[in-house]
Amino acid sequence: MQHISGDNHLRNLLVTISYDGKNYHGWQIQKNGVTVQEVFQNALNNIVGEFSDLKGCSRTDSGVHANMYCISLKINHPIEPLRLKAALNRWLPMDVACLDCKEVDDDFHARYNCKSKEYIYKIWNSETRNPFLNGYVLNYRYPIDVELLNKSAQDYVGKHDFTSFCTVDKRETGDFVRDVKRFSVKREGNLVTMTVEANGFLYNMVRIMVGTLLEIQQGKIMPDGIAEIINKRDRSYAGATAQPCGLYLNKVNY
Amino acid sequence: MQHISGDNHLRNLLVTISYDGKNYHGWQIQKNGVTVQEVFQNALNNIVGEFSDLKGCSRTDSGVHANMYCISLKINHPIEPLRLKAALNRWLPMDVACLDCKEVDDDFHARYNCKSKEYIYKIWNSETRNPFLNGYVLNYRYPIDVELLNKSAQDYVGKHDFTSFCTVDKRETGDFVRDVKRFSVKREGNLVTMTVEANGFLYNMVRIMVGTLLEIQQGKIMPDGIAEIINKRDRSYAGATAQPCGLYLNKVNY
Repeated sequence: MQHISGDNHLRNLLVTISYDGKNYHGWQIQKNGVTVQEVFQNALNNIVGEFSDLKGCSRTDSGVHANMYCISLKINHPIEPLRLKAALNRWLPMDVACLDCKEVDDDFHARYNCKSKEYIYKIWNSETRNPFLNGYVLNYRYPIDVELLNKSAQDYVGKHDFTSFCTVDKRETGDFVRDVKRFSVKREGNLVTMTVEANGFLYNMVRIMVGTLLEIQQGKIMPDGIAEIINKRDRSYAGATAQPCGLYLNKVNY
Repeated sequence: MQHISGDNHLRNLLVTISYDGKNYHGWQIQKNGVTVQEVFQNALNNIVGEFSDLKGCSRTDSGVHANMYCISLKINHPIEPLRLKAALNRWLPMDVACLDCKEVDDDFHARYNCKSKEYIYKIWNSETRNPFLNGYVLNYRYPIDVELLNKSAQDYVGKHDFTSFCTVDKRETGDFVRDVKRFSVKREGNLVTMTVEANGFLYNMVRIMVGTLLEIQQGKIMPDGIAEIINKRDRSYAGATAQPCGLYLNKVNY
């Protein structure tokens, strides 16, 4: 299956995709179900006929979406980046799209070179659900006070140890400090969108941040309670982990 | 199963729903697959425990969506309209939502009392698909000249015999004259939306109108060709029937 070329120089490509995560068990290949990595790997193999070790920019959970997700991959095949993009869009399932494809330096790595990432979390804030958004938002029927939550959320901003906002997981080791650059809560009609940018995120971090804000809305946590929860460095003080379906990886900055 | 009440006066209710048609074989109950009418009837029976003869405002094809769809139904049960709305939203599948529920005059009929209906047709006009819109738009990769098509489409407006824009079907008999009040073609980024309001629509009429405009875009039909196609009263002169997935019943006016 290995493509034979004159020299054995491997090209390094950066591929940007977008995907509807509703039908996938996240990005990373696993035994329990179909993942975006698996369908991407299959599409790529059908085009270039060689196996490439894909480097995804992040793990994403089951049901989480991506408006922008970056993959670096090394291949031998001489296909033009624009032709690879077109071919990927023919071989990928309709709920995954290749947005861009370009040559990058040999040492570029989609995860390690990432300077910051932006996630958004969408909440449909209405007594009546929107049937077109099933699986694409968190449904929340009681009125959300966007100004209140936006104010509370400013305590997330800065360089903090986010142990309280990380699901206990053997994959998370070492440094729990992350630099949150901004956090906003905005409303457009019934749609409430939370946006967070950071240099990196711990396991379930955004979903726990959102869940904590919803518990402030419910009066279970005080509006000024986030700083104290951060100081506790104990997951049990933060709110519940919000559903994955409202979460979108929105932007990856290199 | 019939609910017993003191008098046998049947209440007449107007129920407004919205549905994602991706997983349904249209509104009307049929043998080939699950329909919106069937899941609605089941939800209603679970709540009021009696069978009601539902009058839907229109047939919709398999895969067609509705931002607004109206149903009139007669029941004996004394349930308050707002409680019925809430109960329907618990019993209906997540891709169907009840938006409103109210008491109407005995002789009100969701189809016969309808003065006009508005449909929209959504086209994703880009070389790259949007993975979140799979099943919710027609994908069209070549640039659409929105001004050209909007101008051509003005020939649809008025009271015409639309035989050329109707799939030959034994259900369509008699009068093929419909009064098209307006037709617009607009763009917002990659999304092109066609909007049409008429006093009524023939079988597949909107989809054939859209398909004809796309053939004007492709140069297969002249930009001023619509008036002549209408005059021919012959389906073979119009364009192909556009896919159902871009079509939404958007508004029903009484």
